[in-house]
Amino acid sequence: MGRYMLVVAYDGSEYCGWQIQPNGPTIEGELNKALSGLLRQKIEVIGASRTDSGVHSLGNVCVFDAETRIPAEKMALALNQRLPQDIRVRKSMEVPDSFHPRHADTVKTYEYKIYNDKIENPLYRLYSKFCYLNLDIEKMKKAAGFIVGEHDFSAFCSAGSSVVDKVRTVYSCDILVDEFPGEPGRLITIRITGNGFLYNMVRIIAGTLIEVGGGRTDPETVGDIIASKDRSLAGDTAEARGLTLVNIKYV
Amino acid sequence: MGRYMLVVAYDGSEYCGWQIQPNGPTIEGELNKALSGLLRQKIEVIGASRTDSGVHSLGNVCVFDAETRIPAEKMALALNQRLPQDIRVRKSMEVPDSFHPRHADTVKTYEYKIYNDKIENPLYRLYSKFCYLNLDIEKMKKAAGFIVGEHDFSAFCSAGSSVVDKVRTVYSCDILVDEFPGEPGRLITIRITGNGFLYNMVRIIAGTLIEVGGGRTDPETVGDIIASKDRSLAGDTAEARGLTLVNIKYV
Repeated sequence: MGRYMLVVAYDGSEYCGWQIQPNGPTIEGELNKALSGLLRQKIEVIGASRTDSGVHSLGNVCVFDAETRIPAEKMALALNQRLPQDIRVRKSMEVPDSFHPRHADTVKTYEYKIYNDKIENPLYRLYSKFCYLNLDIEKMKKAAGFIVGEHDFSAFCSAGSSVVDKVRTVYSCDILVDEFPGEPGRLITIRITGNGFLYNMVRIIAGTLIEVGGGRTDPETVGDIIASKDRSLAGDTAEARGLTLVNIKYV
Repeated sequence: MGRYMLVVAYDGSEYCGWQIQPNGPTIEGELNKALSGLLRQKIEVIGASRTDSGVHSLGNVCVFDAETRIPAEKMALALNQRLPQDIRVRKSMEVPDSFHPRHADTVKTYEYKIYNDKIENPLYRLYSKFCYLNLDIEKMKKAAGFIVGEHDFSAFCSAGSSVVDKVRTVYSCDILVDEFPGEPGRLITIRITGNGFLYNMVRIIAGTLIEVGGGRTDPETVGDIIASKDRSLAGDTAEARGLTLVNIKYV
């Protein structure tokens, strides 16, 4: 019996999130099916991040235990033959039996993308939130500066989370802008790295930075919102399609 | 009665191309439906470029004639309320009655995108061709240099085209590379601008440049392929999903 780890990318558009549930297809469900078929035994993966419905990934991680003679490194390609096109295993490897993807220190990176223009762009609709208001990038960068550091992020956590300790450290929160030659719109990426994120934290930070960019909230107010620990003062939870889990680093 | 022009963006993934046909939904068909509903009269658009099934657009152009009091500039937003999410009118305006989108001098820009990595990336699968072979960018750039200029592009035209004069001028053919921090893959864009393109010309150029990048053809051979006027010497027609019509400029 060995323990194996997979790094998994997916387009979350057509899935009810990571975690298995009765209402529709899930990433976890598709992986269990492909693995059980390949290894001819019942496999149940344990995921690092149970991403919400519609959220994308370039680097979610999961582990499973199996008895097999297939070399760990060959599993990725073999699984991709069995998985739908919108899920791809990017890497497979053996890990120690004691390794648990959620009970380990990690640095996670997320990106939240905003397509900023007067009219939507069909080629970005699946992987970004559309924003009609012209966003002030300098204000967003200033506001992002308040997010960085060790804070109690209660104001940026959706109700219903059972987590008690809401202190997390954000190592960086950058605002990147792609302009396209000859094109009217632009793509704004909020890239955020930290040692852990509360439920919906990145999407609430994105919603708050969009309010700042649109002029509804001053950049300095973001510091006050953090200090208040009051969810009602932060912005809306920005829609799932804009969010991608880019990377999980085990440290 | 007035003549109106629309600039139309679309994700071609779910369509049987621009031109109306019995087998499935088309961009032209969706536009006619939305326009006829909005303007309460039978509208039939004339498109500038009848893109193939699966090809995308950021700037295709069409015109139609209608009797209406709706200001031309307001049509884009009103049409977008009626169109599916993967089609968006980016601009609407009145044009002279004599304007025909195909009988006018134009400069067209296309992009062909290649996702270059060992394993596919689900977030790029709809808008790029996947290429497993590590492509040599410098060789591709060298080969692209042979494409630029006025040439008889018979070698880069699919059989079945009824066009007689196959001389076209390519103004530029650039190879652009996006690398992603911390990510294994990269996105290669072939951006090509010219005064006209033969049937499948950009996709055959892309297929040929991929052969050069993968080491199967020397960059210098591309000059010989053009001179030969022999379709069988050029590369495969690269798949439709990688192609986007970026822009049509009327000059």
